[in-house]
Amino acid sequence: MSIALVIPDRKLDQLQQKLQQQLPDVTIEIWPQITDPTAVRMAVLWRQPPGCLAEMSNLQALQSFGAGVDNVLVDTTLPDLPLARIVDPMLTHSMLQYLQGVVQHYQLRLDEFGAQQRKQIWKARSPRQLKHICVLGLGELGQAAASHFAGLGFTVSGWSASPKTLAGVHCFAGDAAFSAAVNEADLVICLLPLTAQTENLLDQQRLTLLKPGVILVNVARGAIVDDLALLQNLDSGHIAAACLDVFRTEPLPTEHPFWQHPAILLTPHISAVTNADTAVAQIAENYRRSLAGLPLLNLVCQQRGY
Amino acid sequence: MSIALVIPDRKLDQLQQKLQQQLPDVTIEIWPQITDPTAVRMAVLWRQPPGCLAEMSNLQALQSFGAGVDNVLVDTTLPDLPLARIVDPMLTHSMLQYLQGVVQHYQLRLDEFGAQQRKQIWKARSPRQLKHICVLGLGELGQAAASHFAGLGFTVSGWSASPKTLAGVHCFAGDAAFSAAVNEADLVICLLPLTAQTENLLDQQRLTLLKPGVILVNVARGAIVDDLALLQNLDSGHIAAACLDVFRTEPLPTEHPFWQHPAILLTPHISAVTNADTAVAQIAENYRRSLAGLPLLNLVCQQRGY
Repeated sequence: MSIALVIPDRKLDQLQQKLQQQLPDVTIEIWPQITDPTAVRMAVLWRQPPGCLAEMSNLQALQSFGAGVDNVLVDTTLPDLPLARIVDPMLTHSMLQYLQGVVQHYQLRLDEFGAQQRKQIWKARSPRQLKHICVLGLGELGQAAASHFAGLGFTVSGWSASPKTLAGVHCFAGDAAFSAAVNEADLVICLLPLTAQTENLLDQQRLTLLKPGVILVNVARGAIVDDLALLQNLDSGHIAAACLDVFRTEPLPTEHPFWQHPAILLTPHISAVTNADTAVAQIAENYRRSLAGLPLLNLVCQQRGY
Repeated sequence: MSIALVIPDRKLDQLQQKLQQQLPDVTIEIWPQITDPTAVRMAVLWRQPPGCLAEMSNLQALQSFGAGVDNVLVDTTLPDLPLARIVDPMLTHSMLQYLQGVVQHYQLRLDEFGAQQRKQIWKARSPRQLKHICVLGLGELGQAAASHFAGLGFTVSGWSASPKTLAGVHCFAGDAAFSAAVNEADLVICLLPLTAQTENLLDQQRLTLLKPGVILVNVARGAIVDDLALLQNLDSGHIAAACLDVFRTEPLPTEHPFWQHPAILLTPHISAVTNADTAVAQIAENYRRSLAGLPLLNLVCQQRGY
């Protein structure tokens, strides 16, 4: 019996080694070098090529290597098997560190002082008054972010597809409530999952509902934001600044206008990186559960997409 | 009886108004428009021209308008009267916000990602491991900063002229202990007062004692750092980056090499701005104390310089 790591374009030696230490009796193989596809019981997936699981006729469980599953579900050949994702407390920690740093970056106006420095302009300004933060998406990371900023004394609103309740957070649900969730926010953080429903959700129409002068932070998936609409709103000043960690295509193509836009702070998808040790522990545990007929940890609904 | 506001090159209408509300029976005048110099009992000072207090023969107290007094003490004609400074809890708050934002800026490598963005380089890097922070100067602000970062779980060392004890902080005192205070620190924050002893304290010799790859943050006074030595250490890479909020001459002259240095984050002296309301309350209280023969709040030793 074996586990197949189907994560193209990534060095997997370390992951393989660590997983082997946790599961010494199991064969851990890196796709496409699979000795016996029928021996594979679990596949660990991230951007897997469609059809690559076809010969693994005894698969019992699918494990996303990320916190999201959008990069797994785009594969329409995916078998209808239990699919789990990684829930990494260190990933949440890293996301909160990122968001807190970004919020303070804008509070201190380091964006504006950076621009002034390049032009040798000495102009003192008091900190930005960011009082109200809106978090779009109230999954694991969205809830953690909303609670974190509420705990720091910010007014926090949250928006999600299905109704949620979260202490200290004004929760809104569904399309009709989008405007009420965002229209008072000084800073909007996108932590939505990428699904058919959220693709291009932040289009021209919805961006218009944001408060003039708002700051937008996207740490979810690039395809949730309409690139062109964002650029137009930045150019008009309706959105004062955007911090983008995720993009429709990654790495962001060099010709993309985001790179050189003065109102964009761009980071190369570093806001939340899965910790290998946590991932390994969860993959190993889910492998054992799968063989024992127990439900997987952190199961995802394939239909719903999260 | 009157108070003279001797703060050249600044709009003082608001300060005058607010002080007048606190002390309705006292004449508040803005230098050089002083009706009767012999009526002045207290002078509020910041960068006052030497000799300007000569005719105020009945002065009883001097009040710095800032948290520091270096800009007051440079005036060698200053009479030997009690001198107080402003201790503003909001100023401490604003300083801590600044320092925390700057530390997170470097932890998240926003400096490096900013440089990458300008060159369209996509290269993910995990956060900088800043574990040890050294605070130079353990006055009000230095103690607050050291305690703040110790509370966040950083290893914190502190260095000051005279021995201090501070919970959770490894305190070092005196020149001989400088090396031990700084040589393990990943980030050094300068919060020293500017005195004859601290001018050019961070010269080539002392900067060499810092850990290779250190980050230097100066939020005290520009003249504490030897500009040329700092530039040399940034160019050699011994100091990885510097965040400077204070300068030998402010505004920083446009031809100064700090402006364009890729390893310098420059802000226009905004880390701690005296809150007018707090300042007004302390000035009014010190005026009342002075008339009543009580010791001033937040007294400074003119000899020592802080």
